[in-house]
Amino acid sequence: MSTIYEQSLKLHEEKKGKIEVLSKIEINSKQDLSLAYSPGVAEPCRKIAEDKNNSYRYTSKGNIVAVISDGSAVLGLGNIGPDAAMPVMEGKSILFKRFAGIDSFPIVLDTQDTEEIIKTIKFIAPSFGGINLEDISAPRCVEIEKRLIEELDIPVFHDDQHGTAIVTCAGLINSAKLLKKNLSDLKVVVNGAGSAGSSISKMILSLGVKELLVLDKEGILNRDDSESYNFLQRELAQISNPDNLKGVLKDAIVGADVFIGVSVGNILTKEMVRTMNKDAVIFAMANPTPEIMPEDALEAGAAIIGTGRSDYPNQINNVLVFPGLFKGALRSRAKKITEEMKMAAAIGLANLLDEKELRKDYIIPDVFDSRVAEAVAQEVEKLVD
Amino acid sequence: MSTIYEQSLKLHEEKKGKIEVLSKIEINSKQDLSLAYSPGVAEPCRKIAEDKNNSYRYTSKGNIVAVISDGSAVLGLGNIGPDAAMPVMEGKSILFKRFAGIDSFPIVLDTQDTEEIIKTIKFIAPSFGGINLEDISAPRCVEIEKRLIEELDIPVFHDDQHGTAIVTCAGLINSAKLLKKNLSDLKVVVNGAGSAGSSISKMILSLGVKELLVLDKEGILNRDDSESYNFLQRELAQISNPDNLKGVLKDAIVGADVFIGVSVGNILTKEMVRTMNKDAVIFAMANPTPEIMPEDALEAGAAIIGTGRSDYPNQINNVLVFPGLFKGALRSRAKKITEEMKMAAAIGLANLLDEKELRKDYIIPDVFDSRVAEAVAQEVEKLVD
Repeated sequence: MSTIYEQSLKLHEEKKGKIEVLSKIEINSKQDLSLAYSPGVAEPCRKIAEDKNNSYRYTSKGNIVAVISDGSAVLGLGNIGPDAAMPVMEGKSILFKRFAGIDSFPIVLDTQDTEEIIKTIKFIAPSFGGINLEDISAPRCVEIEKRLIEELDIPVFHDDQHGTAIVTCAGLINSAKLLKKNLSDLKVVVNGAGSAGSSISKMILSLGVKELLVLDKEGILNRDDSESYNFLQRELAQISNPDNLKGVLKDAIVGADVFIGVSVGNILTKEMVRTMNKDAVIFAMANPTPEIMPEDALEAGAAIIGTGRSDYPNQINNVLVFPGLFKGALRSRAKKITEEMKMAAAIGLANLLDEKELRKDYIIPDVFDSRVAEAVAQEVEKLVD
Repeated sequence: MSTIYEQSLKLHEEKKGKIEVLSKIEINSKQDLSLAYSPGVAEPCRKIAEDKNNSYRYTSKGNIVAVISDGSAVLGLGNIGPDAAMPVMEGKSILFKRFAGIDSFPIVLDTQDTEEIIKTIKFIAPSFGGINLEDISAPRCVEIEKRLIEELDIPVFHDDQHGTAIVTCAGLINSAKLLKKNLSDLKVVVNGAGSAGSSISKMILSLGVKELLVLDKEGILNRDDSESYNFLQRELAQISNPDNLKGVLKDAIVGADVFIGVSVGNILTKEMVRTMNKDAVIFAMANPTPEIMPEDALEAGAAIIGTGRSDYPNQINNVLVFPGLFKGALRSRAKKITEEMKMAAAIGLANLLDEKELRKDYIIPDVFDSRVAEAVAQEVEKLVD
């Protein structure tokens, strides 16, 4: 039997890619042509020329999200460039449609220059109701997202940073609930100080966690070694690690309640898990091979294990977030996706599971739970002025 | 009864624009997700990283054309900017789908700087199989198209220049056939020295016409007044007007066999038509009001009258060209649309009507003639190496 990779390749070849652009209007007569195109089309043009907001009334813009990448950090594959990134971006686009009814179009960029990326996205922005940045390497992605949020009046969201962070927080909220622990008492270790690790760390602090260690490849981020850090890591070193500890993962993990991995496969050993606190929670989200395999984590005594994989329980998957988040933002014409909206999305996602439903292998809704996108959308909408 | 404009506005509002992005793949299970997205999608990514040409095998790129405008010269409405241009661009996109089965996505640009437009389009180009430039003002459009053709390896085509020119040539070829005139004997007046006028003039010379006058708002382009011309008009003044005549339209039109208008409404009077040669051919393509109304032209003695309008016979409409042209170019993976392809498209379009079918009110196929796109596509493909 063929592997998932062979099957996927065959599917992509048979379908010649995954997206298709359709007309919402039938054109079967000259009358149809006159209405959809010349001369009738002049009228919606004139209305939008009078007031730009009419774009949302007379064009598809209001329900279209661009998925944009420069191909510099494509899931587990690294810097493979714009062309090779396209299958992922098309995939993302069809997930928007499938899970939130949002039309989404993938754009890959033939530049990895921060300023050029910002300028290009600003120039094409009037075509879209929102912008989902994807698979852009850290720390550039943070600067690009920040600038675009400031300079554009449509929602801009870098899913690799915040999508993962929001689902992780939802999972953590429900884990604490199930295990009857207070978030403020937890010692949390985040392994990975890139785009996802950074956003996760900040959201976790917002949740009330006080004892947080963040590690990059060299070890625990601290305030003495920051010479070699990029701006993102320097920022993390300032807000985490209150006791300014040093060391590597095996040092950091001792006595931890929660391990959050956004790093590489097989980096967390059973021995390390055994040094964690009782009822340890492990979110091992490296793809496709997690930081520790679920069976090993459980054998070593962890209470809850989540991964990015669809073939294990507790799948910590961004698809639980970005469709609903944009659905809410587009529907309410939000100009920005704020920190408050992200937190509300995490709490809303967590609360979708009733406390009595929670189990160690069910701390987060299933990706095909049809309530998810609408629940997240409503949380976002509540916060729009 | 409501006007075409009111009806069009209502239609655009009801449908919330005209385009929609769909998935070609169903996602109803975790297995589906694994194939269309992570982890399976890594395999088509890897194949494209090995060889960029695999984009055409595993993504939708090969059948996607971008319709791109800066909104600087939108049909009859002028420089209304990117947002207000969108209804036209969406319209163009759905015509690609309707007439050639091509997926097309509209992009409007928030800059009217020539270099920024070129750079932006180059940066987003890997997302597309071809680029249709639209409603960009002259003479910038010529520079933008030229540079993109040189610098990109996918077909780039400015429809306002060449689409109109190709259909006009097809109409002229069949008019000459029907009226038993030789193209090389014709005196042709082109009124309008912008993007369409320029391309029409060049193609008409390629057809063998020797006596050509081109007029801008000031009158006949000539080699003495070229101080005030832009580069496009200077070029036209060099290749037309062999006797270096001066004057305005009423001077130029005397003794002409063909009038081609790409200018403004109601500029050609019946008196002027009466001074044309016997069996005069008039293509009055200003939109929505032609340079002369068909009934007036015929009353003044013209043999053949064509306009851009769908409510009169002989509609000289770009939709007869761009869908088939791109269909042929995409199918054959042409890197450029050459002069030879444009001419072949014009001849192929003309030849679609059998000589015996030709009538004074039927010198060009109907826009809904289902043979058109495929016939044009095949002419283009014949010329691809």
